[in-house]
Amino acid sequence: MAAQKIDGTAIAKSIREKLTHEIAEKQKNTPRFKPALTIIQVGGRPDSSTYVRMKLKAAQEANITCNIQKFPEDITEAELLEYIDQLNNDPSVHGILVQLPIPKHISEAAITSAVHHNKDVDGFSTMNIGDLAKRGKTPLFTPCTPAGVMVLLKESGVGVRGKNAVVLGRSDIVGSPVSYLLKNADATVTVCHSHTKNLPEIVKTADIVVAAIGIPNFVKGEWIKPGAVVIDVGINYIKDETRRSGERLVGDVDYESVKEVASLITPVPGGVGPMTVCMLLQNVVESANRFWEATRARKIT
Amino acid sequence: MAAQKIDGTAIAKSIREKLTHEIAEKQKNTPRFKPALTIIQVGGRPDSSTYVRMKLKAAQEANITCNIQKFPEDITEAELLEYIDQLNNDPSVHGILVQLPIPKHISEAAITSAVHHNKDVDGFSTMNIGDLAKRGKTPLFTPCTPAGVMVLLKESGVGVRGKNAVVLGRSDIVGSPVSYLLKNADATVTVCHSHTKNLPEIVKTADIVVAAIGIPNFVKGEWIKPGAVVIDVGINYIKDETRRSGERLVGDVDYESVKEVASLITPVPGGVGPMTVCMLLQNVVESANRFWEATRARKIT
Ligand SMILES: NC(=O)C1=CN([C@@H]2O[C@H](COP(=O)(O)OP(=O)(O)OC[C@H]3O[C@@H](n4cnc5c(N)ncnc54)[C@H](OP(=O)(O)O)[C@@H]3O)[C@@H](O)[C@H]2O)C=CC1
Ligand SMILES: NC(=O)C1=CN([C@@H]2O[C@H](COP(=O)(O)OP(=O)(O)OC[C@H]3O[C@@H](n4cnc5c(N)ncnc54)[C@H](OP(=O)(O)O)[C@@H]3O)[C@@H](O)[C@H]2O)C=CC1
Repeated sequence: MAAQKIDGTAIAKSIREKLTHEIAEKQKNTPRFKPALTIIQVGGRPDSSTYVRMKLKAAQEANITCNIQKFPEDITEAELLEYIDQLNNDPSVHGILVQLPIPKHISEAAITSAVHHNKDVDGFSTMNIGDLAKRGKTPLFTPCTPAGVMVLLKESGVGVRGKNAVVLGRSDIVGSPVSYLLKNADATVTVCHSHTKNLPEIVKTADIVVAAIGIPNFVKGEWIKPGAVVIDVGINYIKDETRRSGERLVGDVDYESVKEVASLITPVPGGVGPMTVCMLLQNVVESANRFWEATRARKIT
Repeated sequence: MAAQKIDGTAIAKSIREKLTHEIAEKQKNTPRFKPALTIIQVGGRPDSSTYVRMKLKAAQEANITCNIQKFPEDITEAELLEYIDQLNNDPSVHGILVQLPIPKHISEAAITSAVHHNKDVDGFSTMNIGDLAKRGKTPLFTPCTPAGVMVLLKESGVGVRGKNAVVLGRSDIVGSPVSYLLKNADATVTVCHSHTKNLPEIVKTADIVVAAIGIPNFVKGEWIKPGAVVIDVGINYIKDETRRSGERLVGDVDYESVKEVASLITPVPGGVGPMTVCMLLQNVVESANRFWEATRARKIT
């Protein structure tokens, strides 16, 4: 029997509608409440431009202010750090997002750690990752794609506690934070990467597989334990002459073979992708709420 | 064939001698160089008092200043935070250690996060754990017991890259940071905990097992893959009428059965235990060196 599809588009849509409603309700009493996000884009990578446009559009639809600040490819690390510092100190900005990847001459770790953790809506700062990686602490912001993975599991009724979860990939953006979230949710988590031996054998032990490696159609049906839940984070463009654009979007999972074995699977597109943007908006709104409450608390005392 | 013993006592001794020598050498030119550690103990748990005494003795032997500040069981979280803040701002203190566990009415996460990350010789602050949990970042301090585990593996000639490592336990103090260190060293890491199902089966896949759960003799020989390396972090006292003290120290690993299957194994006592204190001293010396260099740099400019 073919796996059931997890409809990320629908789940994301309902969360975005809830956020739009929440903002509108709040503005009835406090018209000056206006969540605001600044996105920093360095250079002109077409994929980055696409992602930034998507985020802008989604933010506008939810009535979130979104400013895009573009910098040339050759901006120095020091200049970028200075601009981030300005935004950190600008009370009208609730969220700061640096679109990754950034050019190789700038340290990604230095930049993501420079965003003040109370505006770090991407959740990549050392403080937020640190709180995520510690028990008994809750980060101000959880990285968006990993948070989206957890929401998809929850909305699909997948219990995580006590399950074996195998995460393919250990990046700071997806693999590692997903593994911390799954561990905190009481799964037994194995993190695999390019040095992993016998990957198919390890994947076979998983009740939940999260693939985030960036290789088209990498995970095969015969690796999957029957009935497993498969979350495909991959976003890869491959050649497809039958398309007008000449290319086609596929995940890290070989959908056709895996869907025959899994019980639940996210499609690409329409799975994890839409969740990332929607978790970002949620982080911006949460941040705006926190700043608003803090201002109000200061006025009262 | 019985496993070879990893001699933590000898490895720790040689590192401590190196540190003592390093301090003495440095003091020849700069007599005022004096690494200093403050240990905070809340309440009078006998095991905590033993650990604190051990650290004091080891520090003194290495010519590291060590002050012990005891507080009554009923100190408030706010009072403790205030004292930590004082130490954070005291230039004569290079390392601050809060002996855990602390009383239940005080948040362990709040306290460990309050120690400034540049004096956090235990490595438990959010900043240090965050840098450990991120790729491309190196924390100022690595938690002592996990760091000791890695040194034992290295000194025993165990290559970690590409190995399957299973960590039993996910505490902030041992299990989780050990798993981050092993992941950063390119092992494929599985973290197990109290909700893990089929634990023996999972342990059987491991080339390297690290046990940190706090249950005497828990890991059995028949769970172990022949030739695996077994690191026993456990420190448990069990009744033993044949001893004058009426008790005996054992690890989380059933040494007798596991040593018949493993290739390398740490004994308890004499394995990981001595490494913890020695990694602590190393962190204090590193910190003192950093403060010293910073002061010198300020004087020069
Ligand atoms: N849906 C969404 O919104 C998002 C999707 N993505 C997509 O997710 C995927 C992963 O992204 P990201 O984490 O940023 O990628 P990275 O390139 O940063 O990380 C890839 C990870 O996969 C591991 N890996 C590479 N090859 C193999 C292999 N043969 N076997 C096992 N592991 C391997 C790497 O191992 P090692 O560490 O050893 O190098 C690394 O940990 C990409 O397709 C990306 O486009 C990313 C972000 C958001
Ligand atoms: N050698 C040294 O210097 C040091 C030794 N230790 C020793 O190491 C051991 C662990 O210490 P610590 O990490 O602080 O302990 P904690 O009690 O904080 O954590 C124990 C961990 O083991 C897990 N666990 C408990 N029972 C089981 C089970 N039946 N199966 C699988 N996992 C289980 C728990 O799971 P869950 O998270 O689900 O509760 C938890 O993650 C202790 O013996 C301690 O004395 C500790 C520090 C230093």
